[in-house]
Amino acid sequence: MNIQLKNGENMQISAGANVLDVAKQLSEGLARNAVAGEVNGVLVDLSTPLNENDNVTIITLKDPQGLEILRHTTSHILAQAVKEIYPTAKLAIGPATEDGFYYDFDFKETVTNEDLAKIEAEMKRIIKADFPIVRQEVSKATAIKHMKAEDETFKLQIIDAIPAGEKITMYKQGEFEDVCRGPHLPRTGMVKAFKLTKVAGAYWRGDSRNKMLTRIYGVAFEKKSEMDEYFVRLEEALKRDHNKLGRELELFATSPVIGQGLPILLPKGARVVQLLQRFVEDEEEKRGYLLTKTPLLAKSDLYKISGHWDHYRDGMFVLGDEKKDEEVFALRPMTCPFQFQAYLNKPRSYKDLPLRYNETSTLFRNEASGEMHGLIRVRQFTISEGHIACRPDQLEEEFKNALSLAQFMLKTVGLEEDVTYRFSKWDEKDKKKYIGSAEEWETVQNQMRTILNHLGITFTESNGDAAFYGPKLDIQIKNVFGKEDTLITIQIDFQLAKRFEMVYTDQNNEKQYPYVIHRTSLGCYERTLALLIEKYAGAFPMWLAPVQAVVMNVSEKSEAYAQEVAQALREAGIRTEVDLRGEKIGYKIRQAQLSKVPYMVILGENEANTNTVSIRKRNGEEVKGLTLQNVLQNFQEEIRTKSK
Amino acid sequence: MNIQLKNGENMQISAGANVLDVAKQLSEGLARNAVAGEVNGVLVDLSTPLNENDNVTIITLKDPQGLEILRHTTSHILAQAVKEIYPTAKLAIGPATEDGFYYDFDFKETVTNEDLAKIEAEMKRIIKADFPIVRQEVSKATAIKHMKAEDETFKLQIIDAIPAGEKITMYKQGEFEDVCRGPHLPRTGMVKAFKLTKVAGAYWRGDSRNKMLTRIYGVAFEKKSEMDEYFVRLEEALKRDHNKLGRELELFATSPVIGQGLPILLPKGARVVQLLQRFVEDEEEKRGYLLTKTPLLAKSDLYKISGHWDHYRDGMFVLGDEKKDEEVFALRPMTCPFQFQAYLNKPRSYKDLPLRYNETSTLFRNEASGEMHGLIRVRQFTISEGHIACRPDQLEEEFKNALSLAQFMLKTVGLEEDVTYRFSKWDEKDKKKYIGSAEEWETVQNQMRTILNHLGITFTESNGDAAFYGPKLDIQIKNVFGKEDTLITIQIDFQLAKRFEMVYTDQNNEKQYPYVIHRTSLGCYERTLALLIEKYAGAFPMWLAPVQAVVMNVSEKSEAYAQEVAQALREAGIRTEVDLRGEKIGYKIRQAQLSKVPYMVILGENEANTNTVSIRKRNGEEVKGLTLQNVLQNFQEEIRTKSK
Repeated sequence: MNIQLKNGENMQISAGANVLDVAKQLSEGLARNAVAGEVNGVLVDLSTPLNENDNVTIITLKDPQGLEILRHTTSHILAQAVKEIYPTAKLAIGPATEDGFYYDFDFKETVTNEDLAKIEAEMKRIIKADFPIVRQEVSKATAIKHMKAEDETFKLQIIDAIPAGEKITMYKQGEFEDVCRGPHLPRTGMVKAFKLTKVAGAYWRGDSRNKMLTRIYGVAFEKKSEMDEYFVRLEEALKRDHNKLGRELELFATSPVIGQGLPILLPKGARVVQLLQRFVEDEEEKRGYLLTKTPLLAKSDLYKISGHWDHYRDGMFVLGDEKKDEEVFALRPMTCPFQFQAYLNKPRSYKDLPLRYNETSTLFRNEASGEMHGLIRVRQFTISEGHIACRPDQLEEEFKNALSLAQFMLKTVGLEEDVTYRFSKWDEKDKKKYIGSAEEWETVQNQMRTILNHLGITFTESNGDAAFYGPKLDIQIKNVFGKEDTLITIQIDFQLAKRFEMVYTDQNNEKQYPYVIHRTSLGCYERTLALLIEKYAGAFPMWLAPVQAVVMNVSEKSEAYAQEVAQALREAGIRTEVDLRGEKIGYKIRQAQLSKVPYMVILGENEANTNTVSIRKRNGEEVKGLTLQNVLQNFQEEIRTKSK
Repeated sequence: MNIQLKNGENMQISAGANVLDVAKQLSEGLARNAVAGEVNGVLVDLSTPLNENDNVTIITLKDPQGLEILRHTTSHILAQAVKEIYPTAKLAIGPATEDGFYYDFDFKETVTNEDLAKIEAEMKRIIKADFPIVRQEVSKATAIKHMKAEDETFKLQIIDAIPAGEKITMYKQGEFEDVCRGPHLPRTGMVKAFKLTKVAGAYWRGDSRNKMLTRIYGVAFEKKSEMDEYFVRLEEALKRDHNKLGRELELFATSPVIGQGLPILLPKGARVVQLLQRFVEDEEEKRGYLLTKTPLLAKSDLYKISGHWDHYRDGMFVLGDEKKDEEVFALRPMTCPFQFQAYLNKPRSYKDLPLRYNETSTLFRNEASGEMHGLIRVRQFTISEGHIACRPDQLEEEFKNALSLAQFMLKTVGLEEDVTYRFSKWDEKDKKKYIGSAEEWETVQNQMRTILNHLGITFTESNGDAAFYGPKLDIQIKNVFGKEDTLITIQIDFQLAKRFEMVYTDQNNEKQYPYVIHRTSLGCYERTLALLIEKYAGAFPMWLAPVQAVVMNVSEKSEAYAQEVAQALREAGIRTEVDLRGEKIGYKIRQAQLSKVPYMVILGENEANTNTVSIRKRNGEEVKGLTLQNVLQNFQEEIRTKSK
């Protein structure tokens, strides 16, 4: 029979051949490395028989799907090992994750991280045994009968939920059988590099009303060397993790009595955010923005006009009950309807546009408890917010300026090379999530694509990530663990001006609705702070460092001179701490090093006598015999130029 | 018989004499001016008979109580006039106010401001008739009978509420009789200067579930000249009223869909607040404060520890319902429990103290609808907040520094001569409003009084105005209408450290609780902005002016030069607007004058040709032929010195 390969070529193969046969016919090497196939766009096992004119791709561990299959298979090996050691353990689910896999169990025993080595050893035995992994289609009755015999209550619930017509497949390796959609590796022996990483709790089906199960996590890679690299990267990431380092450096803290997702910026963190805010506000002022300061809550009336009440209410903190209370308020999840009030304060003409409003704006999002993370995903944050009302003929220029401002900000703080661009469009299959007609969305998305093409940036497109009122350009960034988030967004809104009756009179004295660009210059300050902690591993550039210099005396004899130098630094506007403790200088240096302060100013008898200053950078570099004047000038220049 | 006079002297007077007889015996002039008496500390009518050894003071219109009696009597004259013109009108209540009086009526007819002249004319007739005003004690039955006959349903409710044993008095003038506690002037003819000012709606007993009545307001003074002065002052106040002027100058706005007490700071208002905030934060940094940025909401758990949940809950916006929800949050009404978390972040020793924390902190207070006013009484505001944790031996010094900082701020913005000081203590009769024992309150109030005495400031004392956790020094200020509010407060807290287990180890390595000083440098920015608008009638000092200069061209011929000068001003950091419209220069000047911009830079052909600059101040003063360099230097110097 004839099949078609990925590269478009046809291949003749004997009738009844399966995916592995195709791999074999292509090359012995490919057959050795093959883990699965993609037939007509669907991932399948190598053993899957083919039909005339099937479109076939061979999947190896070099393909992302191949690695996912490896990881998923490793979770089955984990389950098999667990059942060997804990025969009464009940199985729930075991998917692949970004770097590995997990499996949820209901143990009679208490299983902890201490038990992982034992389970790993059993997994290695299973791998060494190199069991073939055999797929079998079964009837629902057969599946139920098998799982009843094993008393697998969770598996029975899973089978129960499979619609009547749908195929049920079981995978068997050695004596172990699991109900699973597959596909899987052909043999357990193909797993070459894995490690169990931790035990955690997880609710059955993720619902806190259900039973708490035990989740065992692991990682798996094609090769041992890749796994080693992963652990090196992870260690580095853990060192930079803002949620750990940010606390150690006293940048922020949290409190159980305040609540999750509500970080406290300690003096050092608050200083960095203050510096960023002032820098953004000042740059925006230079670029013609008008600062506002609008309320953080409003009556439901406002959100009903804007559409937030219908399209964003789940994410909002609401105060009061519409059924009982005369007035119901909500904390704002976005600034737009508030800042629009500034526009609405008086009549506007086409000559007044563009009007660019900015605000250092605090927002509130009622995130679910499980989603909170350090400074990255929080319930309250402060954003460098802004809205530009402009005429159609100004849209492209204003969009370009907004992007150029964001890029300037990213460059200044040193994140410009770490971002990617995403054009986020609506989901035409889920129209009720959005306001405006399909034609309007089509038009504005085409306008936006044209603008993006003119900008010459590389961007991906994503359906369903638009705001409810219009498409967005999202500037995406990954944290130290590889998790991607939106740092900056620039949106074109063709709907809210109508809803708020925001108009301007054009040259013919007719009322028109402006376009509104919703944009941020540097995103949320909390998130930016988190990313900068991770970027610089806490060693902020001089201009952003909460403490810029620590002055330390070597002994009592240079105490007075140290105080004099510290005073001069402070008067020159350098954020300076003084360490005059009666400790050894080596100890003081190590402490300053740990706090990642850019400069240590070390003053001993020699410096005091010669009226000079010795400097030590946080990289260990030392310079002696400088004049104070010289040091001040260098410091000020480094701050002024925002050098990194 | 013998009576005692105010000056302590005794007077012999015939038995059965009344207050007026005492006045007559003192002097004919005094008797002419007497309006009431104070007998043993109680205000009474002149006709009140005296008893042996009574302590008697004669009250004239020069006394505040005399003026209040005059105003109260004028409200009765208003009621009499209304009943003459609208016989079916029902009477509610008619007290004196700060400058006059009002009376609430239930009219069948619609009565508006248009009707006031007619009512005034009738009042003048009653005054001219010079009716004696006669007091009569009556039984409850008699009072009820009289009011039933007149169908005065509200008066019947009032009588009904008078406890059984209490005296009921009626006052009669001409044919008009009213139930009233008195006292009153002896004759209607003693009212020399009054005016009805407006008609407004008011609920019976101030409760919105009751009937809406018509309130007629008036003012009354001893003399016509005083009333004239009052109206001149009022006109001046209205011109400065921040709630009017602040809107006209586009400093702020409000929106019915956002809600009451939630002002929107428009670009000009937001700029002034930004400048003030930066100034405060920078000055505090210089004075050793550590900036924090803490969350605006927290779980109820936090407020239960701090005591806000039990002692301040009515003033808080609560999110969620303790009966239903797992987590209940509340918006913060104060920063203290949040900022304490920074202290609690690590162990503290006596060497670390004092720790001075500051924050530009947004707070929320759930004020009743009727209490909201412009930028002065609002539901959300931002305060220059701070808390100092210190040892007992540092308390006086830190308190002194906090006051000195507040006084520096007041001086810089020009309000230092407008404030008074109030020592606000607890109310020992209402202990449940406070935390801590009577002994503790006694001790800390004595400590605070000692500190205040050492400071050499003049202060009043007030019972019941303390915070629930400690006594306060309040810096009070009156708005343009004479209403007093607290602008700045410095509080000594001897309770919350215990509740939060905030400790430090002393020299003996024992745990101690620090004192906490709660303080603000410049109060709430919204309130300060309001007071500055009123103080300067919108003409802010140069350093605070949202727009500092308007550059205007006389004709097209100087347009290019105007743009060049504006550019130079902006580059020198001067907030500059440009008016290049093709309007007459006189028109442009008038518009700039109305916006109260400090400087107009007026550029004509002559200036362009000679490369000079002409300046016009907002007071009309003009200077011509300056060099641009000179102007820039003068502007920058005026800003740098924050000159007023």
